[in-house]
Amino acid sequence: MPQPPVREIAFTLRTIAGLDAAMAEGLFPDLAPDLVDAVLDEAAKFAAERMAPLDAIGDQVGANFENGAVTMPEGWRELYRDWTAGGWNAIAGPADYGGQELGTALAAAVAEMWNFASMPFALGPLLTAGAVEALDKHGSEGLKRIYLEKLVSGTWAGTMNLTEPQAGSDLAALRSRAERRDDGSYRIFGQKIYITYGEHDLTENIIHLVLARLPDAPAGVKGISLFLVPKFLPDEAGAPGRRNDVFCHSIEHKLGIHASPTCTMLFGEGTVDGAEPGAIGWLVGEENRGLACMFTMMNNARLMVGMEGVGLADAAYGKALAYAAERRQGRATRLAPGAEPAGGMSPILGHPDVARMLLTMKGLTEASRAIAFSCAVAIDRARAYGASDPDKAKAWQERANLLTPIAKAFSTDAACEVASLGIQVHGGMGFVEETGAARLLRNARITPIYEGTNGIQAIDLVTRKIGQSGGEAVSAFIGELEAIVTELTGRNAPDFGETAVCLAAATADLTAATDFLLELLRSGETDTALAGAAPYLKLFGLAAGGALIAKGALAEADPERVALCRFVAENLVPETAALRRTVRFGAASLAAAHDLLAAKAQS
Amino acid sequence: MPQPPVREIAFTLRTIAGLDAAMAEGLFPDLAPDLVDAVLDEAAKFAAERMAPLDAIGDQVGANFENGAVTMPEGWRELYRDWTAGGWNAIAGPADYGGQELGTALAAAVAEMWNFASMPFALGPLLTAGAVEALDKHGSEGLKRIYLEKLVSGTWAGTMNLTEPQAGSDLAALRSRAERRDDGSYRIFGQKIYITYGEHDLTENIIHLVLARLPDAPAGVKGISLFLVPKFLPDEAGAPGRRNDVFCHSIEHKLGIHASPTCTMLFGEGTVDGAEPGAIGWLVGEENRGLACMFTMMNNARLMVGMEGVGLADAAYGKALAYAAERRQGRATRLAPGAEPAGGMSPILGHPDVARMLLTMKGLTEASRAIAFSCAVAIDRARAYGASDPDKAKAWQERANLLTPIAKAFSTDAACEVASLGIQVHGGMGFVEETGAARLLRNARITPIYEGTNGIQAIDLVTRKIGQSGGEAVSAFIGELEAIVTELTGRNAPDFGETAVCLAAATADLTAATDFLLELLRSGETDTALAGAAPYLKLFGLAAGGALIAKGALAEADPERVALCRFVAENLVPETAALRRTVRFGAASLAAAHDLLAAKAQS
Repeated sequence: MPQPPVREIAFTLRTIAGLDAAMAEGLFPDLAPDLVDAVLDEAAKFAAERMAPLDAIGDQVGANFENGAVTMPEGWRELYRDWTAGGWNAIAGPADYGGQELGTALAAAVAEMWNFASMPFALGPLLTAGAVEALDKHGSEGLKRIYLEKLVSGTWAGTMNLTEPQAGSDLAALRSRAERRDDGSYRIFGQKIYITYGEHDLTENIIHLVLARLPDAPAGVKGISLFLVPKFLPDEAGAPGRRNDVFCHSIEHKLGIHASPTCTMLFGEGTVDGAEPGAIGWLVGEENRGLACMFTMMNNARLMVGMEGVGLADAAYGKALAYAAERRQGRATRLAPGAEPAGGMSPILGHPDVARMLLTMKGLTEASRAIAFSCAVAIDRARAYGASDPDKAKAWQERANLLTPIAKAFSTDAACEVASLGIQVHGGMGFVEETGAARLLRNARITPIYEGTNGIQAIDLVTRKIGQSGGEAVSAFIGELEAIVTELTGRNAPDFGETAVCLAAATADLTAATDFLLELLRSGETDTALAGAAPYLKLFGLAAGGALIAKGALAEADPERVALCRFVAENLVPETAALRRTVRFGAASLAAAHDLLAAKAQS
Repeated sequence: MPQPPVREIAFTLRTIAGLDAAMAEGLFPDLAPDLVDAVLDEAAKFAAERMAPLDAIGDQVGANFENGAVTMPEGWRELYRDWTAGGWNAIAGPADYGGQELGTALAAAVAEMWNFASMPFALGPLLTAGAVEALDKHGSEGLKRIYLEKLVSGTWAGTMNLTEPQAGSDLAALRSRAERRDDGSYRIFGQKIYITYGEHDLTENIIHLVLARLPDAPAGVKGISLFLVPKFLPDEAGAPGRRNDVFCHSIEHKLGIHASPTCTMLFGEGTVDGAEPGAIGWLVGEENRGLACMFTMMNNARLMVGMEGVGLADAAYGKALAYAAERRQGRATRLAPGAEPAGGMSPILGHPDVARMLLTMKGLTEASRAIAFSCAVAIDRARAYGASDPDKAKAWQERANLLTPIAKAFSTDAACEVASLGIQVHGGMGFVEETGAARLLRNARITPIYEGTNGIQAIDLVTRKIGQSGGEAVSAFIGELEAIVTELTGRNAPDFGETAVCLAAATADLTAATDFLLELLRSGETDTALAGAAPYLKLFGLAAGGALIAKGALAEADPERVALCRFVAENLVPETAALRRTVRFGAASLAAAHDLLAAKAQS
């Protein structure tokens, strides 16, 4: 039975991302190292024993749509029931509504394990968690009282309804509309597409959070409001009552995540007999301020999509490593100790090229995890300082803001690469679906797209994040990376090889690229900055990931950890030099080619 | 209707790969520029009008296996009939047996278009072409007389039966056995897996070329013989007669190429009533020399798998470009001339990040095509010089040998990257199967695996190819790349930007990495060389691809060509510096991490 890398997860969370340090500072009174380890162990057990075995059937059978209803694959209802009964849905939810309030960092760590076991399963609760957060922060007391406890426990599920056919990355183009009613409610009309878990039979009710425009709303993103639209309207007792005028029209036939129903939702088509048309909804937050509320959900969701990437990468690495240790082909030039060739053949793990693929997979996975957990701990620190130390709270919130697009984009790009390498390690077996390696790539391929494409993440990083506090937030973070490199250089340990040299070059590349982009933004040359946004994000991820892995290897001089650190620094990180070049010099050639390409495509 | 890039194909073939120059030298008397263009135009027409429309159904329905028989998707039999009737199967076949003998270069160019339209369809004839080549070179006159004409025309199809469950990359482990019979025939027994088009209903007969061992054969690869095993034994008149004891046991359920039946074949199970068990076969070439015969097929097949990569990349780029010109989201900072935002939104092509993805796709595609066609022209030149000028023939054959693993591996890795970027450009639509973007990635993903994994290609390049003629072959090729850079530097044209500087650095990286590897091989440090094999192959592809694209831009100063050349040189090629570093310094860290990884996996 495949096991999630729970020891690596605990180490990265506690030591590299600094949860131990934060606990030692007394920031999280509800947490303790023992509790963290116990939670992680329990999650690993549930993920491996209960969830992972149902992932294959979820992929093969998929969510089934018939007559407006979605039936989930066999065993998934029971899985969801037991998973929520174990309290897992409530791990980060507010204590006032039954949540355990154990923080984003621990939630991210257990999310890695759910995604390791079955990313399409874990995806549903991710949306519910977003709904909880938006309601908790922006909902009225009345709404909270009715909905929050059920969403926190997972008795009811939540969704995010943003996308419309003409409005994907560009929410300014939203057309769904909302009408005010005298009783304080609203009626919602419109079509939403790509709604993850928009309909299913895991829960007795589904609570949709929906972006729509009021009749008198200003144009663009400043005229969007957020509404809560339940599938069943709660009755006096809070139980699901009358059917609301919101229905699933169809589900998509997709490359992956087959068990995750991707729905086209119709609001206000007048489908409910005897009821006035219009889906009944209630405002969340203020009118025309819906986008800000939605971003509350999206930031957390982006980090959690990053965790999808990490979990999928874990699974791909574990599967490939197990195969490479078992499968024998050829006589390896470098034999594993004690692994004499059987019938003249060595485990393929003994071949340098296979080892390179496996170490690349592991290196990208650990870099992604270290960045994502660092982001999660920053979120928790910001929340913990809160009003008591607003300066620190702001600094940590800016750290979280800075790392969120990297946690999302770097991890999900890495997941695709790692899953693809996982197929390659399996050879022909990797292309056969029964092996399961291909499924991981199919599932991973959505992660760079949804919750803001990775291109959007790069734009966000460059135009909104590196300029925070006049560049102080990013330079503080780079300063921490440099401190790691300085410590490494001072250590002068031979088994690190050229790690310090490579990481010093990478942090220098990051500094130079950052300064260059900040200068462009100051002088209003946004075009030129945007041309380098995606390469810059990758540069950032490599430099930060390499240094954070080194932080771990400095803290715990386990030979395997040191060797992986060195491999990453000497083999993966040096790409930063080319990326810095592209950020610095790539814009002119991009612009020249871009004009001609656009002219040709329009003609 | 999507159109293959026939003008780019013609330009790359004639100008960059030098088919025009070779024709001008009088090397190919059967070819002329007009004929080349006419053939390419006809192929483009058939590909776009007849083949491409059947690709989607091939994917959705797939090859269907029932009771030992494979039924191809609706319309595919008629497509195959008309495609062979058009003479396309015979394009490179020997004239003595009805072939047009137009050469590998033209065959590769039209293959790009078949793969653009439907790679799973094109895959079948690729195997038949390999069987033709092996028979033509190694078969007895008797076998040629019975089989070649039918295989050349495509009336019958061919297959390659190499892989067994325990023998994939390592053919030394083959167990299938052959017994001699007094009449000069053999009886074949054994199981083969992953046999592409091992069974289907496109042709009335299927001719299997099968590797097996004779009872007295030496162990290892020097004890493998090649046999021809027809599905139906030809009768006196040469028509398909009695059923032979070779059957398809099952087909695989795969990530992609659903219409291409991937068969498990059973030889000699005694399934034919009234016949002695054993599949009847005849020796091709000499006993125990089967691997050499099979390599005849494989080298050509490797180049043609490279063409699968190029064709799939074409298709992904064309689809993504069309979508990006149509789909409107956001207000682009850089507007296409004349493309005013409709409803405030610009075509996404106007966004720098989307343009970067599209230009990366196009750049990788053109680099792959230029390398593959250069390899194909080298094959034709070697054949044309033949016995009349053995020195030149040898030099060109070594060029072809050198470029084959790069044409295979670089193009297929590029195809996966390009297809993945194509999905990304489509956003959510890319993940929905109806769009067709995801299908291209699913189909592309097999190409780095079969016909020798890309890891095997890299090993082949480093251990067998760069050392040809004491390194002269590789240094002659790099010399040609340097000459392009020198010409570019002398041209001093401002619209090339830093192209010359970037390409000069890349060829220097290639030279340094090559010298380093050659020195390691001379001193017997094969391990260290193998550790850098895959990064070296990528370095080679980027440096060569960049320079060859520049050769085209120097020959035809079309602004779009120059701009793409500059984009490739300034944005994609600079990765060679990091790759050179990895080749040079990566082995030590790989070895250290590898030992620990292996030890852990064995424990």
